[in-house]
Amino acid sequence: MPAPLELLIESLRCLPGVGPKSAQRMAYHLLQRDRNGAKRLAGALDDALARLRHCSRCNSFTEAEVCERCASAARDPQLLCVVEMPADLAMMEQAHAYRGLYYVLMGRISPLDGIGPRELKLDRLLARATDGVVQEVILATNFTNEGEATAHYVGEMLRARGLKVSRLARGVPVGGELEHTDVGTIAQAMVERRSL
Amino acid sequence: MPAPLELLIESLRCLPGVGPKSAQRMAYHLLQRDRNGAKRLAGALDDALARLRHCSRCNSFTEAEVCERCASAARDPQLLCVVEMPADLAMMEQAHAYRGLYYVLMGRISPLDGIGPRELKLDRLLARATDGVVQEVILATNFTNEGEATAHYVGEMLRARGLKVSRLARGVPVGGELEHTDVGTIAQAMVERRSL
Repeated sequence: MPAPLELLIESLRCLPGVGPKSAQRMAYHLLQRDRNGAKRLAGALDDALARLRHCSRCNSFTEAEVCERCASAARDPQLLCVVEMPADLAMMEQAHAYRGLYYVLMGRISPLDGIGPRELKLDRLLARATDGVVQEVILATNFTNEGEATAHYVGEMLRARGLKVSRLARGVPVGGELEHTDVGTIAQAMVERRSL
Repeated sequence: MPAPLELLIESLRCLPGVGPKSAQRMAYHLLQRDRNGAKRLAGALDDALARLRHCSRCNSFTEAEVCERCASAARDPQLLCVVEMPADLAMMEQAHAYRGLYYVLMGRISPLDGIGPRELKLDRLLARATDGVVQEVILATNFTNEGEATAHYVGEMLRARGLKVSRLARGVPVGGELEHTDVGTIAQAMVERRSL
Protein backbone atom coordinates (compact mmCIF):
# COMPACT_ATOMS: atom_id res chain seq x y z
CA MET A 1 0.00 0.00 0.00
CA PRO A 2 1.47 3.44 -0.89
CA ALA A 3 2.58 5.42 2.18
CA PRO A 4 0.18 8.40 1.78
CA LEU A 5 -2.77 5.99 1.60
CA GLU A 6 -1.61 4.08 4.67
CA LEU A 7 -1.16 7.36 6.57
CA LEU A 8 -4.61 8.60 5.54
CA ILE A 9 -6.27 5.37 6.72
CA GLU A 10 -4.34 5.53 10.00
CA SER A 11 -5.26 9.21 10.45
CA LEU A 12 -8.98 8.61 9.88
CA ARG A 13 -8.95 6.32 12.89
CA CYS A 14 -8.74 9.32 15.21
CA LEU A 15 -12.45 9.79 14.48
CA PRO A 16 -14.62 8.32 17.23
CA GLY A 17 -16.21 4.98 16.28
CA VAL A 18 -14.03 4.46 13.20
CA GLY A 19 -12.15 1.14 13.12
CA PRO A 20 -9.64 -0.16 10.56
CA LYS A 21 -12.29 -1.41 8.10
CA SER A 22 -14.34 1.80 8.03
CA ALA A 23 -11.19 3.92 7.86
CA GLN A 24 -10.19 1.98 4.74
CA ARG A 25 -13.66 2.38 3.24
CA MET A 26 -13.64 6.12 4.00
CA ALA A 27 -10.19 6.61 2.44
CA TYR A 28 -11.17 4.83 -0.79
CA HIS A 29 -14.45 6.74 -0.93
CA LEU A 30 -12.73 10.11 -0.51
CA LEU A 31 -9.96 9.42 -3.01
CA GLN A 32 -12.19 7.76 -5.56
CA ARG A 33 -15.55 9.45 -5.35
CA ASP A 34 -15.29 12.68 -3.38
CA ARG A 35 -11.95 14.42 -3.82
CA ASN A 36 -13.64 17.79 -3.44
CA GLY A 37 -15.17 16.67 -0.18
CA ALA A 38 -11.76 15.51 1.04
CA LYS A 39 -10.18 18.84 0.11
CA ARG A 40 -12.98 20.72 1.85
CA LEU A 41 -12.63 18.52 4.94
CA ALA A 42 -8.87 19.11 5.17
CA GLY A 43 -9.45 22.84 4.92
CA ALA A 44 -12.29 22.83 7.44
CA LEU A 45 -10.14 20.92 9.94
CA ASP A 46 -7.25 23.38 9.62
CA ASP A 47 -9.62 26.32 9.75
CA ALA A 48 -11.52 25.07 12.81
CA LEU A 49 -8.29 24.27 14.67
CA ALA A 50 -6.90 27.71 13.92
CA ARG A 51 -9.99 29.82 14.51
CA LEU A 52 -12.07 28.15 17.22
CA ARG A 53 -11.37 28.50 20.91
CA HIS A 54 -13.32 28.23 24.14
CA CYS A 55 -15.47 31.16 25.18
CA SER A 56 -13.93 32.55 28.36
CA ARG A 57 -17.40 32.75 29.90
CA CYS A 58 -19.38 29.67 28.79
CA ASN A 59 -16.54 27.39 27.63
CA SER A 60 -18.34 26.61 24.35
CA PHE A 61 -16.59 26.98 21.00
CA THR A 62 -16.34 30.49 19.60
CA GLU A 63 -14.15 32.63 17.38
CA ALA A 64 -14.11 35.58 19.79
CA GLU A 65 -12.86 35.89 23.36
CA VAL A 66 -16.48 35.93 24.53
CA CYS A 67 -19.21 34.31 22.40
CA GLU A 68 -22.22 36.21 21.10
CA ARG A 69 -24.60 34.58 23.54
CA CYS A 70 -22.53 35.45 26.60
CA ALA A 71 -22.08 39.01 25.34
CA SER A 72 -25.81 39.49 24.71
CA ALA A 73 -27.60 42.06 26.89
CA ALA A 74 -30.91 40.28 26.27
CA ARG A 75 -29.90 37.37 28.52
CA ASP A 76 -30.51 37.20 32.26
CA PRO A 77 -27.00 37.08 33.80
CA GLN A 78 -28.36 35.86 37.14
CA LEU A 79 -29.18 32.43 35.72
CA LEU A 80 -26.51 29.93 34.69
CA CYS A 81 -27.45 26.62 33.06
CA VAL A 82 -24.80 23.88 33.09
CA VAL A 83 -24.87 21.40 30.17
CA GLU A 84 -22.51 18.65 29.05
CA MET A 85 -22.02 19.47 25.38
CA PRO A 86 -22.78 22.23 22.84
CA ALA A 87 -25.43 19.92 21.33
CA ASP A 88 -27.27 19.99 24.69
CA LEU A 89 -27.11 23.77 24.72
CA ALA A 90 -28.64 23.77 21.23
CA MET A 91 -31.51 21.56 22.47
CA MET A 92 -32.14 23.87 25.44
CA GLU A 93 -32.29 26.84 23.09
CA GLN A 94 -34.72 25.06 20.80
CA ALA A 95 -36.99 24.46 23.79
CA HIS A 96 -37.41 28.27 24.17
CA ALA A 97 -37.89 27.93 27.94
CA TYR A 98 -34.75 29.64 29.21
CA ARG A 99 -33.33 33.13 28.81
CA GLY A 100 -30.28 32.94 31.07
CA LEU A 101 -26.63 32.13 30.30
CA TYR A 102 -24.87 28.79 29.93
CA TYR A 103 -21.77 26.92 30.98
CA VAL A 104 -20.72 23.98 28.77
CA LEU A 105 -18.69 21.32 30.59
CA MET A 106 -17.43 19.77 27.32
CA GLY A 107 -17.89 16.36 28.84
CA ARG A 108 -19.01 14.65 32.02
CA ILE A 109 -17.44 12.98 35.01
CA SER A 110 -16.61 9.50 33.78
CA PRO A 111 -14.15 7.53 35.95
CA LEU A 112 -14.01 4.70 33.38
CA ASP A 113 -12.65 7.13 30.78
CA GLY A 114 -10.34 8.75 33.32
CA ILE A 115 -12.36 11.98 33.37
CA GLY A 116 -12.74 13.44 36.84
CA PRO A 117 -13.38 16.95 38.21
CA ARG A 118 -9.84 18.01 37.34
CA GLU A 119 -10.03 16.87 33.71
CA LEU A 120 -13.38 18.69 33.36
CA LYS A 121 -11.71 21.82 34.80
CA LEU A 122 -14.57 22.34 37.23
CA ASP A 123 -12.57 25.13 38.89
CA ARG A 124 -13.36 27.23 35.81
CA LEU A 125 -17.09 26.60 36.32
CA LEU A 126 -16.68 27.48 40.00
CA ALA A 127 -15.00 30.78 39.13
CA ARG A 128 -17.73 31.53 36.56
CA ALA A 129 -20.60 30.71 38.95
CA THR A 130 -19.17 32.74 41.84
CA ASP A 131 -18.76 35.99 39.87
CA GLY A 132 -21.20 37.68 42.23
CA VAL A 133 -23.86 38.13 39.53
CA VAL A 134 -25.10 34.55 39.15
CA GLN A 135 -27.90 33.78 41.61
CA GLU A 136 -29.03 30.33 40.48
CA VAL A 137 -27.28 27.47 38.72
CA ILE A 138 -29.53 25.06 36.83
CA LEU A 139 -27.95 21.65 36.28
CA ALA A 140 -28.99 20.30 32.88
CA THR A 141 -26.55 17.43 32.46
CA ASN A 142 -28.01 14.23 31.03
CA PHE A 143 -30.09 11.88 33.13
CA THR A 144 -27.64 9.05 32.55
CA ASN A 145 -25.54 7.59 35.35
CA GLU A 146 -22.59 9.77 34.40
CA GLY A 147 -24.72 12.87 33.92
CA GLU A 148 -26.40 12.34 37.30
CA ALA A 149 -23.03 11.82 39.01
CA THR A 150 -21.75 15.00 37.39
CA ALA A 151 -24.83 16.95 38.52
CA HIS A 152 -24.40 15.60 42.05
CA TYR A 153 -20.74 16.60 42.24
CA VAL A 154 -21.23 20.04 40.69
CA GLY A 155 -24.31 20.63 42.82
CA GLU A 156 -22.45 19.88 46.07
CA MET A 157 -19.53 22.04 44.97
CA LEU A 158 -21.72 25.07 44.23
CA ARG A 159 -24.09 24.74 47.16
CA ALA A 160 -21.04 24.79 49.45
CA ARG A 161 -20.42 28.32 48.13
CA GLY A 162 -23.93 29.38 49.06
CA LEU A 163 -25.32 29.35 45.51
CA LYS A 164 -28.89 28.29 44.75
CA VAL A 165 -28.69 25.11 42.66
CA SER A 166 -31.51 23.38 40.78
CA ARG A 167 -31.87 20.43 38.44
CA LEU A 168 -34.10 19.90 35.41
CA ALA A 169 -37.24 18.03 36.47
CA ARG A 170 -37.52 14.31 35.88
CA GLY A 171 -40.87 12.88 34.89
CA VAL A 172 -43.10 11.52 32.19
CA PRO A 173 -42.24 13.05 28.79
CA VAL A 174 -44.76 15.49 27.29
CA GLY A 175 -47.09 13.43 25.12
CA GLY A 176 -45.89 10.28 26.89
CA GLU A 177 -48.27 7.47 27.76
CA LEU A 178 -47.77 5.70 31.10
CA GLU A 179 -48.12 2.33 29.39
CA HIS A 180 -45.04 3.07 27.32
CA THR A 181 -42.99 4.87 29.97
CA ASP A 182 -40.30 2.96 31.87
CA VAL A 183 -41.11 2.25 35.52
CA GLY A 184 -38.05 4.15 36.81
CA THR A 185 -39.37 7.33 35.21
CA ILE A 186 -42.87 6.71 36.59
CA ALA A 187 -41.45 6.16 40.08
CA GLN A 188 -39.49 9.43 39.85
CA ALA A 189 -42.55 11.26 38.56
CA MET A 190 -44.48 9.99 41.58
CA VAL A 191 -41.79 11.01 44.10
CA GLU A 192 -41.47 14.43 42.53
CA ARG A 193 -45.19 15.01 41.97
CA ARG A 194 -46.33 18.65 41.99
CA SER A 195 -49.25 19.97 44.01
CA LEU A 196 -51.84 21.74 41.85
CA MET B 1 -22.79 28.05 16.18
CA PRO B 2 -19.52 29.64 14.97
CA ALA B 3 -18.99 29.37 11.21
CA PRO B 4 -15.77 27.25 11.27
CA LEU B 5 -17.51 24.70 13.51
CA GLU B 6 -20.56 24.57 11.27
CA LEU B 7 -18.32 24.14 8.21
CA LEU B 8 -16.32 21.36 9.89
CA ILE B 9 -19.49 19.45 10.81
CA GLU B 10 -20.83 19.89 7.28
CA SER B 11 -17.48 18.77 5.80
CA LEU B 12 -17.32 15.62 7.91
CA ARG B 13 -20.57 14.50 6.29
CA CYS B 14 -18.71 13.69 3.08
CA LEU B 15 -17.47 10.57 4.90
CA PRO B 16 -19.57 7.51 4.01
CA GLY B 17 -22.03 6.52 6.73
CA VAL B 18 -21.66 9.77 8.69
CA GLY B 19 -24.94 11.61 9.36
CA PRO B 20 -25.53 14.96 11.08
CA LYS B 21 -25.40 13.54 14.62
CA SER B 22 -22.13 11.63 14.20
CA ALA B 23 -20.57 14.52 12.30
CA GLN B 24 -21.33 16.74 15.30
CA ARG B 25 -19.91 14.16 17.71
CA MET B 26 -16.76 13.78 15.57
CA ALA B 27 -16.22 17.55 15.38
CA TYR B 28 -16.50 17.99 19.16
CA HIS B 29 -14.23 15.01 19.76
CA LEU B 30 -11.54 16.33 17.42
CA LEU B 31 -11.65 19.90 18.73
CA GLN B 32 -11.91 18.93 22.37
CA ARG B 33 -9.97 15.71 22.78
CA ASP B 34 -7.77 15.08 19.77
CA ARG B 35 -6.47 18.27 18.17
CA ASN B 36 -3.26 16.48 17.14
CA GLY B 37 -5.31 13.78 15.44
CA ALA B 38 -7.30 16.45 13.61
CA LYS B 39 -4.13 18.19 12.45
CA ARG B 40 -2.66 14.88 11.29
CA LEU B 41 -5.88 14.01 9.45
CA ALA B 42 -5.96 17.36 7.62
CA GLY B 43 -2.35 16.83 6.55
CA ALA B 44 -2.91 13.22 5.51
CA LEU B 45 -5.90 14.25 3.38
CA ASP B 46 -3.94 16.97 1.58
CA ASP B 47 -0.97 14.66 1.17
CA ALA B 48 -2.99 11.75 -0.19
CA LEU B 49 -4.87 13.99 -2.62
CA ALA B 50 -1.64 15.46 -3.89
CA ARG B 51 0.48 12.34 -4.11
CA LEU B 52 -1.81 9.42 -4.93
CA ARG B 53 -2.98 8.60 -8.42
CA HIS B 54 -4.23 5.57 -10.30
CA CYS B 55 -1.68 3.10 -11.60
CA SER B 56 -1.87 3.24 -15.39
CA ARG B 57 -1.82 -0.55 -15.51
CA CYS B 58 -3.91 -1.88 -12.60
CA ASN B 59 -5.93 1.28 -11.71
CA SER B 60 -5.11 0.90 -7.99
CA PHE B 61 -3.70 3.81 -5.96
CA THR B 62 0.01 4.48 -6.33
CA GLU B 63 2.50 7.30 -6.15
CA ALA B 64 4.26 6.33 -9.39
CA GLU B 65 2.98 6.08 -12.97
CA VAL B 66 3.05 2.27 -12.65
CA CYS B 67 2.77 0.63 -9.22
CA GLU B 68 5.43 -1.72 -7.83
CA ARG B 69 3.29 -4.80 -8.32
CA CYS B 70 2.61 -4.09 -12.00
CA ALA B 71 6.30 -3.30 -12.57
CA SER B 72 7.47 -6.52 -10.90
CA ALA B 73 9.18 -9.08 -13.14
CA ALA B 74 8.24 -11.86 -10.69
CA ARG B 75 4.58 -11.71 -11.73
CA ASP B 76 3.03 -13.71 -14.55
CA PRO B 77 1.85 -11.07 -17.08
CA GLN B 78 -0.38 -13.55 -18.86
CA LEU B 79 -2.83 -13.67 -15.97
CA LEU B 80 -5.06 -10.72 -15.05
CA CYS B 81 -7.29 -10.86 -11.97
CA VAL B 82 -10.17 -8.34 -11.81
CA VAL B 83 -11.27 -7.22 -8.33
CA GLU B 84 -13.64 -4.51 -7.13
CA MET B 85 -11.51 -2.66 -4.57
CA PRO B 86 -7.90 -2.48 -3.30
CA ALA B 87 -9.07 -4.26 -0.13
CA ASP B 88 -10.08 -7.24 -2.29
CA LEU B 89 -6.66 -7.23 -3.93
CA ALA B 90 -5.09 -7.30 -0.47
CA MET B 91 -7.18 -10.36 0.46
CA MET B 92 -6.19 -12.14 -2.75
CA GLU B 93 -2.53 -11.47 -1.98
CA GLN B 94 -2.92 -12.77 1.57
CA ALA B 95 -4.34 -15.99 0.14
CA HIS B 96 -0.97 -16.65 -1.61
CA ALA B 97 -2.72 -18.53 -4.42
CA TYR B 98 -2.07 -16.20 -7.33
CA ARG B 99 1.07 -14.85 -8.98
CA GLY B 100 -0.39 -12.89 -11.89
CA LEU B 101 -1.32 -9.22 -12.24
CA TYR B 102 -4.46 -7.34 -11.19
CA TYR B 103 -6.97 -4.84 -12.41
CA VAL B 104 -8.91 -2.93 -9.75
CA LEU B 105 -12.33 -1.68 -10.90
CA MET B 106 -12.62 0.79 -7.99
CA GLY B 107 -16.27 -0.10 -7.69
CA ARG B 108 -18.90 -2.31 -9.22
CA ILE B 109 -21.81 -1.95 -11.60
CA SER B 110 -24.61 -0.60 -9.45
CA PRO B 111 -27.58 0.88 -11.32
CA LEU B 112 -29.18 2.11 -8.08
CA ASP B 113 -26.11 4.29 -7.41
CA GLY B 114 -25.93 5.37 -11.03
CA ILE B 115 -22.76 3.39 -11.68
CA GLY B 116 -22.74 1.65 -15.03
CA PRO B 117 -20.01 0.42 -17.40
CA ARG B 118 -19.16 3.99 -18.40
CA GLU B 119 -18.75 5.25 -14.82
CA LEU B 120 -16.51 2.24 -14.07
CA LYS B 121 -14.45 3.13 -17.17
CA LEU B 122 -14.56 -0.46 -18.36
CA ASP B 123 -12.95 0.65 -21.63
CA ARG B 124 -9.71 1.02 -19.65
CA LEU B 125 -10.01 -2.58 -18.45
CA LEU B 126 -10.71 -3.63 -22.03
CA ALA B 127 -7.58 -1.87 -23.28
CA ARG B 128 -5.53 -3.41 -20.46
CA ALA B 129 -6.82 -6.95 -21.05
CA THR B 130 -6.32 -6.81 -24.82
CA ASP B 131 -2.65 -5.78 -24.68
CA GLY B 132 -1.71 -9.01 -26.47
CA VAL B 133 0.12 -10.41 -23.43
CA VAL B 134 -2.82 -11.31 -21.18
CA GLN B 135 -4.11 -14.81 -21.91
CA GLU B 136 -6.65 -15.32 -19.13
CA VAL B 137 -8.78 -12.92 -17.10
CA ILE B 138 -9.93 -14.18 -13.70
CA LEU B 139 -13.03 -12.40 -12.41
CA ALA B 140 -12.79 -12.02 -8.64
CA THR B 141 -15.56 -9.50 -7.99
CA ASN B 142 -17.70 -10.18 -4.93
CA PHE B 143 -20.40 -12.84 -4.95
CA THR B 144 -23.08 -10.26 -4.18
CA ASN B 145 -25.78 -9.37 -6.69
CA GLU B 146 -23.82 -6.35 -7.88
CA GLY B 147 -20.53 -8.23 -7.98
CA GLU B 148 -22.11 -11.07 -9.97
CA ALA B 149 -23.71 -8.62 -12.41
CA THR B 150 -20.34 -6.91 -12.85
CA ALA B 151 -18.62 -10.25 -13.46
CA HIS B 152 -21.29 -11.17 -16.00
CA TYR B 153 -20.94 -7.89 -17.91
CA VAL B 154 -17.14 -7.87 -17.86
CA GLY B 155 -17.03 -11.56 -18.77
CA GLU B 156 -19.23 -11.06 -21.84
CA MET B 157 -17.21 -8.02 -22.89
CA LEU B 158 -13.88 -9.85 -22.72
CA ARG B 159 -15.03 -13.15 -24.18
CA ALA B 160 -16.31 -11.21 -27.22
CA ARG B 161 -12.65 -10.25 -27.80
CA GLY B 162 -11.58 -13.87 -27.72
CA LEU B 163 -10.04 -13.79 -24.25
CA LYS B 164 -10.22 -16.76 -21.89
CA VAL B 165 -12.30 -15.67 -18.89
CA SER B 166 -12.76 -17.49 -15.59
CA ARG B 167 -14.49 -16.81 -12.27
CA LEU B 168 -13.47 -17.67 -8.71
CA ALA B 169 -15.20 -20.89 -7.64
CA ARG B 170 -18.31 -20.77 -5.49
CA GLY B 171 -18.78 -23.39 -2.82
CA VAL B 172 -18.65 -24.36 0.82
CA PRO B 173 -16.00 -22.30 2.68
CA VAL B 174 -12.86 -24.13 3.81
CA GLY B 175 -13.55 -25.38 7.35
CA GLY B 176 -17.28 -24.85 6.77
CA GLU B 177 -19.87 -27.27 8.11
CA LEU B 178 -22.85 -28.02 5.89
CA GLU B 179 -25.19 -27.56 8.85
CA HIS B 180 -24.07 -23.93 9.15
CA THR B 181 -23.80 -23.14 5.43
CA ASP B 182 -26.62 -21.33 3.68
CA VAL B 183 -28.63 -23.43 1.25
CA GLY B 184 -27.85 -21.19 -1.73
CA THR B 185 -24.15 -21.91 -1.26
CA ILE B 186 -24.79 -25.63 -0.88
CA ALA B 187 -26.89 -25.63 -4.05
CA GLN B 188 -24.10 -23.90 -5.96
CA ALA B 189 -21.51 -26.29 -4.54
CA MET B 190 -23.64 -29.19 -5.81
CA VAL B 191 -24.09 -27.70 -9.30
CA GLU B 192 -20.39 -26.90 -9.58
CA ARG B 193 -19.15 -30.15 -8.01
CA ARG B 194 -15.71 -31.30 -9.14
CA SER B 195 -14.94 -34.82 -10.34
CA LEU B 196 -12.13 -36.42 -8.34
